[in-house]
Amino acid sequence: MIRIGIFGYGNLGKGVECAVKKNKDMELKAVFTRRDPETVKIMTEGVSVYKEEKLPEMKDEIDVLILCGGSATDLPEQTPKYASLFNVVDSFDTHANIPKHFDNVDKNARAAGKTCVISCGWDPGMFSLNRLYANCILPDGVDYTFWGKGVSQGHSDAVRRIEGVKDCRQYTCPVEAALDAVRSGSNPSLTTRDKHTRVCYVVAKEGADLSRIENEIKTMPNYFADYDTTVHFITEEEMARDHSGLPHGGNVIRTGKTGMNDEHTHIIEYKLTLDSNPEFTGSVIAAYARAVYRLNKEGDTGCKTVFDIAPKYLSDKDERELIAHLL
Amino acid sequence: MIRIGIFGYGNLGKGVECAVKKNKDMELKAVFTRRDPETVKIMTEGVSVYKEEKLPEMKDEIDVLILCGGSATDLPEQTPKYASLFNVVDSFDTHANIPKHFDNVDKNARAAGKTCVISCGWDPGMFSLNRLYANCILPDGVDYTFWGKGVSQGHSDAVRRIEGVKDCRQYTCPVEAALDAVRSGSNPSLTTRDKHTRVCYVVAKEGADLSRIENEIKTMPNYFADYDTTVHFITEEEMARDHSGLPHGGNVIRTGKTGMNDEHTHIIEYKLTLDSNPEFTGSVIAAYARAVYRLNKEGDTGCKTVFDIAPKYLSDKDERELIAHLL
Repeated sequence: MIRIGIFGYGNLGKGVECAVKKNKDMELKAVFTRRDPETVKIMTEGVSVYKEEKLPEMKDEIDVLILCGGSATDLPEQTPKYASLFNVVDSFDTHANIPKHFDNVDKNARAAGKTCVISCGWDPGMFSLNRLYANCILPDGVDYTFWGKGVSQGHSDAVRRIEGVKDCRQYTCPVEAALDAVRSGSNPSLTTRDKHTRVCYVVAKEGADLSRIENEIKTMPNYFADYDTTVHFITEEEMARDHSGLPHGGNVIRTGKTGMNDEHTHIIEYKLTLDSNPEFTGSVIAAYARAVYRLNKEGDTGCKTVFDIAPKYLSDKDERELIAHLL
Repeated sequence: MIRIGIFGYGNLGKGVECAVKKNKDMELKAVFTRRDPETVKIMTEGVSVYKEEKLPEMKDEIDVLILCGGSATDLPEQTPKYASLFNVVDSFDTHANIPKHFDNVDKNARAAGKTCVISCGWDPGMFSLNRLYANCILPDGVDYTFWGKGVSQGHSDAVRRIEGVKDCRQYTCPVEAALDAVRSGSNPSLTTRDKHTRVCYVVAKEGADLSRIENEIKTMPNYFADYDTTVHFITEEEMARDHSGLPHGGNVIRTGKTGMNDEHTHIIEYKLTLDSNPEFTGSVIAAYARAVYRLNKEGDTGCKTVFDIAPKYLSDKDERELIAHLL
């Protein structure tokens, strides 16, 4: 059994917990938190919740530690730190800082003989892999990535900061006409506005000026100004009833030409439709936790991304079985 | 430059030739054939065509030899034989015999210090990879593979063997209603007939009994009897005008459950829409030829499948560039 530790018990931590349950060769060993452990109730029976400070003394009881903190401030500090003690997987997604994060983790992991995967999930993660494979197969081509329909936490939070807003759920929606144009192989040039729309469900505080809120949302730079945005005001009951989930997904499409005269067009599309963003992300992370465990057993240490890992390492089946059933 | 040799100059050989042209770090060194080389005219200027017998003496001038013969009789003999002299890639697709083929190639490749990839293309190949990734991410799920719309050479050939048939092009078509049912996440049980239909365009010999031909097609065991088949009789001119291409494609879909109570459904779909089956297959093979070349340089020898190869090896970009642009 691969003994898994989870550090950070928010949505992603819970998603990893669910994923561990689905993998018969894994067991959840412990959950670690910066909160008071007494206040953290997890879903798996018989598994303890500890303070972060307990981590070092459990280094021989955990095969892979999954870091479920945020990319802004948690992971830049936690992943390098714990790469000195554990094999770790994180979902670091601040794109511009990945090279620096990689180096920080790599140095400590190598020194400690540990194996790590950073930036794991679906984007970055499975979407990245599909971009890479499609680019290598069709060198002469164009990439498109669409997201949604799905909840964007960042955009929801931005709306919540507007005066008079009590709660918000923001959905990012791909524009079907743009998707169709890409799938036609016509290689359209698409602006930000062409590709996605944004839909906000907002609970306003009593007496708030709804038209001011709507205007502030629609004109917010970076977040909304470049998009066609729709704002719906709803009640708290409607929010709880209709918008409690965290669905997401998207499409990675590459269209490319082959033939001595570029006479043939090919379209490679990878599409995810996810009921629960954190549970799917946790499921990808669990598969890479297995890879990290196996690579470390083979003596392959240091920091890695999904690009570095041969697909067979994700599976609990032996290679003959993979060849027989999946090749 | 990676120096590529092609052995076998049919549709796939031509597809590989086109793919080599698209990869700036590759050059086509020579084409080898069992035919009289004088009769083989290739598309790339300044490249020679040689008899098969010339292969051994060119072993130091070719980095990767692509074997473009058939799976029935060519590759079982050729791939192990030339794995003793070259790094090789083939597209062996007789599924039941892959383990034996793997062992034969592996033994010779290891003894000679060569690196080989067998069963490379899109199915087996990219479809296999997507089945593997999706199975590892969603252990509790169901797999579906659809093919088409595309030309099946095997089925076209089977119809051509019927008395009175001069030519045939057979299209395998996915049933859209079945695809929709799978994409809904309802995990439908689908029979062979539910998933695909078959459409035949037939040029009959003068005076042939069309209704007998149609009946023989529709009742042919294994090939057509289990499918709803449509037969269209057309002229030679229509065949040349409308059915000279070799389009293909398909969908690999896995639907799976997550959550402590299986409350969330996820759908992973990989879809290929290909104008030219052999050119796309050749493009996948070219990317894996690069991997084979690089792995061999690193001393990683023996027989491999797409499951064994870390994605980064397919790319001509260095890892920092991949992280910056594709992760």
